[in-house]
Amino acid sequence: MAAEHIVKAFDSDLQVLSCSVAEMGGLAEKQIADALKALFTHDRDLAREVIGRDLDLDRFQQAIEQKTILTLARRQPMAVDLREIVAALRIANDLERIGDLAKNVAKRVVVLDDVGAPPQLMRGLERMTNLTLSQLNQVLDSYSNRDLSAALTVWRQDEQIDAICTSLFRELLTYMMEDPHYITFCIHVMFSAKNIERIGDHATNIAETVYYIMEGRPITEQRPKRDTTALHVT
Amino acid sequence: MAAEHIVKAFDSDLQVLSCSVAEMGGLAEKQIADALKALFTHDRDLAREVIGRDLDLDRFQQAIEQKTILTLARRQPMAVDLREIVAALRIANDLERIGDLAKNVAKRVVVLDDVGAPPQLMRGLERMTNLTLSQLNQVLDSYSNRDLSAALTVWRQDEQIDAICTSLFRELLTYMMEDPHYITFCIHVMFSAKNIERIGDHATNIAETVYYIMEGRPITEQRPKRDTTALHVT
Repeated sequence: MAAEHIVKAFDSDLQVLSCSVAEMGGLAEKQIADALKALFTHDRDLAREVIGRDLDLDRFQQAIEQKTILTLARRQPMAVDLREIVAALRIANDLERIGDLAKNVAKRVVVLDDVGAPPQLMRGLERMTNLTLSQLNQVLDSYSNRDLSAALTVWRQDEQIDAICTSLFRELLTYMMEDPHYITFCIHVMFSAKNIERIGDHATNIAETVYYIMEGRPITEQRPKRDTTALHVT
Repeated sequence: MAAEHIVKAFDSDLQVLSCSVAEMGGLAEKQIADALKALFTHDRDLAREVIGRDLDLDRFQQAIEQKTILTLARRQPMAVDLREIVAALRIANDLERIGDLAKNVAKRVVVLDDVGAPPQLMRGLERMTNLTLSQLNQVLDSYSNRDLSAALTVWRQDEQIDAICTSLFRELLTYMMEDPHYITFCIHVMFSAKNIERIGDHATNIAETVYYIMEGRPITEQRPKRDTTALHVT
């Protein structure tokens, strides 16, 4: 009876953890969507909201860390249960970093002037954002459903984000060279693009964590990687 | 007798963890120093070494995570012991991120042409690097010695790095505006400077973790913060 009680309490601990991570994931998605919406529409008020809300993600991470540690120390879990707990810790960490990256974009919006940027520049960034949001959404679903194949799909698709980022950097450089008037604006867009690309990297980290939960080992396959922005600034 | 044995084994677990973190810290310092040395001396071979060695830091982090989790699950530690273990996990995480940031700088070196940059530009970056390395060194010492006051000194000094970064960004912008020939080079320096600034942020995270070990609660004081690079690119 006592043992059964402990098992039930432990299952409920795991469920609470998993729900917290999913809820935190939803907030992180909202932060990215709003930060970029603020950038595209020059909405400084929305950007300030994003900056303010970042604290909520920090608090989520602290709460998940706390819960994780207590569960580890109290329940001495093994095998897949242990991996579930470690996964919650890792994903919360990725989501917190995603929040920081969204906040960084929002900070730029607050100080950025509307210089009437060429629409195709912003279109590249918008495509990157949509793809990244879709990747994050899919990987969070794969975590909720413990869906290995969906996680692997996300993991393999990251190179698309990298490819758009690389071509965007090349385009931005051309604008800067041609008209120094655009330099400041383009630097902001470059840093924002780099932040979105990093969000994509965190989505693939989460995919790796889902793999680790289900397979009990890290992915050994080589991930396709096309981030050559460092190359194409030359 | 059995209890005493367990206590001794636990102390030894903690010592092993603490030593691993210190060793990982030494490697992270070396990675930053070498990445920046490679940048200042246009040494692509050294840059490639840095890129290759990043895997060692990743492995360190995985090993520390593994050890941490096993210790938590096996020993059910409480109070300061629990905080010691959580701290090892957090610091290993910061050091792994620091390694990534150093690797990012090294990647730029591999593709960067020597455009004969104005020496004062590189001097700003060199000052920033030295200050950041000294901050990291001090904070790792404060962890090894469990020295609260040294940790707090590092925590409060981060604004100096931010201030140099801000003034460097302003200078870089001027060069880019005046001569488009410098644009590519200056963008690489900007991204490198931003990476170093982030390394500084991780050093302050470590300072916060030392505080948490010793005081059992997060720092509530408001940290002086002068990162206005987002502002000064406008």
